[in-house]
Amino acid sequence: MLSLESLDTPCLVLDVSRMRRNIARLKARLAPMNVQLRPHLKTPKCIEVAREVMQSPQGPATVSTLKEAEQFAEQGLRDLLYGVCIAPHKLPRVSALRQRGVDLMLVVDSIEAAQAVAHHSKQTRDAIPVLIEIDSDGHRSGVQPASGLLTEIGRTLMHGGAALRGVMTHAGDSYNKNDPKALIHIAEQERDAAVRSAEVLRKAQLPCPIVSVGSTPTAHFARHLDGVTEVRAGVFVFFDLVQAGIGVCQTEDIALSVMATVIGHQKEKGWILTDGGWMSLSRDRGTAKQSVDFGYGLVCDINGIPYPDLIVTDASQEHGTLAQRAGSSHQLPHLPVGARVRILPNHACATGAQHDQYQIVDNSNAVIAHWNRFSGW
Amino acid sequence: MLSLESLDTPCLVLDVSRMRRNIARLKARLAPMNVQLRPHLKTPKCIEVAREVMQSPQGPATVSTLKEAEQFAEQGLRDLLYGVCIAPHKLPRVSALRQRGVDLMLVVDSIEAAQAVAHHSKQTRDAIPVLIEIDSDGHRSGVQPASGLLTEIGRTLMHGGAALRGVMTHAGDSYNKNDPKALIHIAEQERDAAVRSAEVLRKAQLPCPIVSVGSTPTAHFARHLDGVTEVRAGVFVFFDLVQAGIGVCQTEDIALSVMATVIGHQKEKGWILTDGGWMSLSRDRGTAKQSVDFGYGLVCDINGIPYPDLIVTDASQEHGTLAQRAGSSHQLPHLPVGARVRILPNHACATGAQHDQYQIVDNSNAVIAHWNRFSGW
Repeated sequence: MLSLESLDTPCLVLDVSRMRRNIARLKARLAPMNVQLRPHLKTPKCIEVAREVMQSPQGPATVSTLKEAEQFAEQGLRDLLYGVCIAPHKLPRVSALRQRGVDLMLVVDSIEAAQAVAHHSKQTRDAIPVLIEIDSDGHRSGVQPASGLLTEIGRTLMHGGAALRGVMTHAGDSYNKNDPKALIHIAEQERDAAVRSAEVLRKAQLPCPIVSVGSTPTAHFARHLDGVTEVRAGVFVFFDLVQAGIGVCQTEDIALSVMATVIGHQKEKGWILTDGGWMSLSRDRGTAKQSVDFGYGLVCDINGIPYPDLIVTDASQEHGTLAQRAGSSHQLPHLPVGARVRILPNHACATGAQHDQYQIVDNSNAVIAHWNRFSGW
Repeated sequence: MLSLESLDTPCLVLDVSRMRRNIARLKARLAPMNVQLRPHLKTPKCIEVAREVMQSPQGPATVSTLKEAEQFAEQGLRDLLYGVCIAPHKLPRVSALRQRGVDLMLVVDSIEAAQAVAHHSKQTRDAIPVLIEIDSDGHRSGVQPASGLLTEIGRTLMHGGAALRGVMTHAGDSYNKNDPKALIHIAEQERDAAVRSAEVLRKAQLPCPIVSVGSTPTAHFARHLDGVTEVRAGVFVFFDLVQAGIGVCQTEDIALSVMATVIGHQKEKGWILTDGGWMSLSRDRGTAKQSVDFGYGLVCDINGIPYPDLIVTDASQEHGTLAQRAGSSHQLPHLPVGARVRILPNHACATGAQHDQYQIVDNSNAVIAHWNRFSGW
């Protein structure tokens, strides 16, 4: 076993006990709701984490890129949803995966894309299964809930040679909320949009076995999930400061951090400089629009205990500037050149993506493993 | 030769003609100033780009991580400055590179770090060469120009067994300017801080052969560089929207773009959705504080010609939302599902870092090569 002090910096540290607690929490919450968890693996991009969160080594799971689908398929996953509306030129890569025995489902929200999938399905004599994306909160892609376009897309798929497998939606607007009532409301809005859309398809004699919803906030705040068959959520495995700001977790639940080393000071200004810049933290400033802005992250000691009000106030590529939050009554901790800190990230998906490995620590902050991450498309 | 249409998306496209024009421009500017260019390779992280910009295959060059130093050393570079104040635990990696014949220089801005380098130098019987960082604009690290601390650090290095090689500064605050007068002023402030600091060292009988300054804005706006021996600049090889906003380049000079594919529309809202989200563009919102905010980037057609006022207004991990800038009188272009666009980035260093390869295009936008990038620490 290694100590954290023996590692070079900056590096990405994953507290596996916290991760397991986070996973157990959502699984316990969903268990009585009669829905399956199809975790979004865009957050970890790591087979060891995937196996911790999936209900079986084959899945199910959600991915955000075909590279994720390919990488996880190589590790034995067989039930995958590629959760981004398909660009037609990617269909040959989809077919290659399906020919290897992966039940890879796609998403469309337009007649054009449905036609492309249907055409490709016919050409390859493989009815590619598709979910129609529903826009449950106006934040991004998807067709209007329960709209006529749904049946048009469904028929285009079914009559053209593809397979309609159901509907999916993602209440991304939940990231902009921070009180339980609003979160309960948006979770119900997400559920309702998906279930009503499924009903429209079924009334039109179209198949809709899957009703898929999910975001980390709505998965944790939904009062019930009647009519839903599966929940997609991703960032809950690690949590982050944005999720804490929303109210889905506490700071103590955040499993991911970036370890950095103090490289200097500007004492008159109350600044501590580290080698943890935006390249290791990411440029994500997700807490900037929340009620408590953590800059580029909340600074903890090497054991992961936060220093009160110490945040990363600024970052350049390989420099992080630590300072007390404006108005803080706390004193700057004594952190000499060479001291280690751990920084809790605004957004685990973005921060993780800057690294190619997790340093896995246990309860006692001993390094017990290195797990690889992948990136790219 | 491949066409851009034959590539999968999102991917990183580098217009090599624009890059060469940008490099030639800065070299022509510096030639009469009697200074050497020590380009910062943190932007490209690519040996082919490094060779285009360096004066010789051995360097000189600047790096922001020891990984960059190691990767470039493997490709034959021998004259390197690691431009971030050294964390003492990294010194064994520094020594390993120096033992391979790399003249790797370090930076310190404190007695503590100077002591650590001196101690390690003595232990390894290798006088590690060091530049003292000067804080020329109050934006980050460095000692006050011409301060007494300079000679203290210099003596700590020299008497302790390390080698003082000079001073360096980076006027990072130039990124916050946008008029020529202010840029000329900050360039002169940067030059003056470095030259005055060198004089202080020399008066104290300390060696100071190198006087190193540089940022892309100041390198392009300095009226003269008397007393300076070398200029470090990095992002000028590619340029980006932030540099255009500062006034260092035109949009037409930006050599880097992310190619993405249209995956859907929200027609009532005037939105076009693509597969180019923040994972491919980076989370950098550098133009948010400039007079023209480009969201996550300026949208061009596949040949790199900007659509008037079409920007990436929002981004999630693998989705980009394109829309006309508020108040625009231009119509949304017709971009059906499957259409390709190229997005000029806010910040080339951050966007490049999200990719592991450059797709190299010539004047006619034919793909003539793939150049690899590396990442990590």
